[in-house]
Amino acid sequence: MFTKVLIANRGEIALRVARTCRELGIATVAVYSTADRDSTVTAFADESVHIGPPPAGRSYLSAPALVEAVRRTGADAVHPGYGFLSEDPDFAEVCAEEGIVFVGPDWPVLERLGDKASARELMLSAGLPLLPGSGGVCATEAECLRTAARLGLPVIVKAVAGGGGRGMAIARDEASLPAVYRETRATAQSLYGDGRVYVERYLDGARHVEIQVLADRHGNALALGDRDCSVQRRHQKLVEETPAPGLSPATREAMALAAVHGVRTAGLVGAATVEFLVDSDENFYFLEVNARLQVEHPVTEMVTGVDIVEQQLRLAAGEPLTLGEQDVRGRGAAVECRLNAEDPDRDFRATPGTLEVFHLPGGPFTRVDTHCVPGATISPYYDPLLAKIVTWGVDRRAALRRMDRALAEVRIEGPGVSVNTALLRRVLADPDFAAGTYSTALLTEMLTASGSAR
Amino acid sequence: MFTKVLIANRGEIALRVARTCRELGIATVAVYSTADRDSTVTAFADESVHIGPPPAGRSYLSAPALVEAVRRTGADAVHPGYGFLSEDPDFAEVCAEEGIVFVGPDWPVLERLGDKASARELMLSAGLPLLPGSGGVCATEAECLRTAARLGLPVIVKAVAGGGGRGMAIARDEASLPAVYRETRATAQSLYGDGRVYVERYLDGARHVEIQVLADRHGNALALGDRDCSVQRRHQKLVEETPAPGLSPATREAMALAAVHGVRTAGLVGAATVEFLVDSDENFYFLEVNARLQVEHPVTEMVTGVDIVEQQLRLAAGEPLTLGEQDVRGRGAAVECRLNAEDPDRDFRATPGTLEVFHLPGGPFTRVDTHCVPGATISPYYDPLLAKIVTWGVDRRAALRRMDRALAEVRIEGPGVSVNTALLRRVLADPDFAAGTYSTALLTEMLTASGSAR
Repeated sequence: MFTKVLIANRGEIALRVARTCRELGIATVAVYSTADRDSTVTAFADESVHIGPPPAGRSYLSAPALVEAVRRTGADAVHPGYGFLSEDPDFAEVCAEEGIVFVGPDWPVLERLGDKASARELMLSAGLPLLPGSGGVCATEAECLRTAARLGLPVIVKAVAGGGGRGMAIARDEASLPAVYRETRATAQSLYGDGRVYVERYLDGARHVEIQVLADRHGNALALGDRDCSVQRRHQKLVEETPAPGLSPATREAMALAAVHGVRTAGLVGAATVEFLVDSDENFYFLEVNARLQVEHPVTEMVTGVDIVEQQLRLAAGEPLTLGEQDVRGRGAAVECRLNAEDPDRDFRATPGTLEVFHLPGGPFTRVDTHCVPGATISPYYDPLLAKIVTWGVDRRAALRRMDRALAEVRIEGPGVSVNTALLRRVLADPDFAAGTYSTALLTEMLTASGSAR
Repeated sequence: MFTKVLIANRGEIALRVARTCRELGIATVAVYSTADRDSTVTAFADESVHIGPPPAGRSYLSAPALVEAVRRTGADAVHPGYGFLSEDPDFAEVCAEEGIVFVGPDWPVLERLGDKASARELMLSAGLPLLPGSGGVCATEAECLRTAARLGLPVIVKAVAGGGGRGMAIARDEASLPAVYRETRATAQSLYGDGRVYVERYLDGARHVEIQVLADRHGNALALGDRDCSVQRRHQKLVEETPAPGLSPATREAMALAAVHGVRTAGLVGAATVEFLVDSDENFYFLEVNARLQVEHPVTEMVTGVDIVEQQLRLAAGEPLTLGEQDVRGRGAAVECRLNAEDPDRDFRATPGTLEVFHLPGGPFTRVDTHCVPGATISPYYDPLLAKIVTWGVDRRAALRRMDRALAEVRIEGPGVSVNTALLRRVLADPDFAAGTYSTALLTEMLTASGSAR
């Protein structure tokens, strides 16, 4: 096992990773930008290294700064968390060249899965069901229009370099398609420096269900159950739960098998999530592989009792997977809510500021992951996630009632700071959500129906 | 089920009970003394009633004030938490007369179990193994000396009205016995208004192991595993864990059977804990029944997934126990540390004051129960428990490593406030504790060996 791990991230996930390292007796190195100088993780880690100013491009996204921090501290591995460089094949390659273990898949695997068009090809070859699409990059507007005519509308235009809900847009009719195509290309170019896009049929009323997978270097791979992440705003997840409500055991099993087979086919080692869309007949279609820790991994931890970060570290160190089906059998249900400093009434605009009051829930079967403390300043440079609240229950109903209780305890106040607590409680109270019969359309429908996100 | 429950307690346990009530859709009434006016539970509960000034005798121990609060709010049940009136047969009887459901055993059961001499008799009749003792009240010093001569020294002198580690003292030689006898009588008289004591052989190097039991009105009873609570200061528990380390399955099974049989024999309905001493040969001896929720119940909740407060409410409402052996099978191990505002170097003297910094841990498999917030004032009137930190792990080692990580995150500061965090981490680091081979002598030996509790 490693003796010292550098955590190439910030916020709640940096602290999350540092906690497990500490529990395993591994020394930790936190990195921080100037804006994060007084963060909880720098206080908790054994060492901290300043890697540059905000924005992220000059610090958390700077491979040279991170490699230099590793050299200076003598860390033998880097955990990238999620976002930032966590799926960056170039960073993983540099680590490999420098003799630093990257806690994640090998760089060629990241490269192949990071290009969403090539990932689609790979999963198609592995026999996973895919939505009909352009079958590769859609290089011109004319080709995009021809593809849409063949598929039928609506379609979704997606950046080849995208993922995690960014760099995608839906076209509902032919008239709007050229603009959607051009805008998505422009967005992709500006976000990723890669304007290539592809086109897929868009499924209205589908659910986003994903499978957590662990895989080792010795040919063993295992699914840790599913998660429903259909509650999304602007393609970003807001509420996640496990098990996905209402799926038949046969569908669950088939998705888990497909995910494990996909991960094996990709030659992926570590923790990964295979995302699917599931329609109302329980047909499921491969979306993408997230070859890293997910924000919503705690719900899986709560029902399985498996520390996924510990598994990532063990797998990256070359240990064989010692968990079997019997070790990861889920108990009960868990749900996660993301508390964001954002204003749901103003298109979820981030609301940075100082947290004068910051009080989070606790008590039975309630997990809180946060890097925030009273008095902390939420910087405009980073994503507005303040905390993840996770509750467990003997069944879905118990977990949801507990979540509502937990959200009722939240008190966060500060000048200019708006938090989405009320919206989260409205989701819990929504009849479709409560019944477990919701889809990715839920939040949009809720907001449209009420004219307000409050 | 009840529609409104009054919580006749304060601090972390009042909030603990209120949380489950909220989750079950039951309205809550908090009560508070003048010193607790701005408490977390009064903010969280649906209603709050002022019941008098401190000390507890004029508020939390005042049955008339509590009954009046129930009348005014129309609550249909009272949850007494632990301590205060939780095992008071008179209060339970008044509730019964007023048509208020007391969430706990019926008052005649409390009366019988509250008198430790009669509880001993009852358990003896049920066939539970007891330590040799005076076989009833030891009415005179001469009788005490004769009993000790028969039993052999050391002996422990215990208040008949005592329990929970209060009102007891050990005599190691004949010379000190008369003073110990007189002092324990005086303490018992002042604490309980009942100076009667009894005498038992004292087991050096024994472990304190207890069984959590649930029992309904319909003849069903079930054990929810054991807890080791041997880490004690002044007979008060400091660190608790489940499962008790190193016990043979046969002993575990025998203790659970004895506990369930004892609870049935007593006619007890609700949640109760049967405490035993276990010697190095795994002989076990009945100590007492705690006919209420225990401070340390969260460790059992974390391994079994059972919400014990929910069960208490259901059982008090007359519902049958629907849990079976298969529903309460433990997964992994859990440990609880009590963070107290006290100075271990000054005989654990309480250190009231204002919590200027109050930062507790979070993250994976970590539960925090606290009523404190930054800026809160710790009153000198009540027990110094600030928070309970509970961690779970796939096995004991994982749970303990996680606890050490969690304690490393604690930051509590305030003028005059001392917290026992360092002592708790020393317990975790102790070789006997780490090996699971410790006894109730652990803490005394640690403190004696180092000359300091730091």
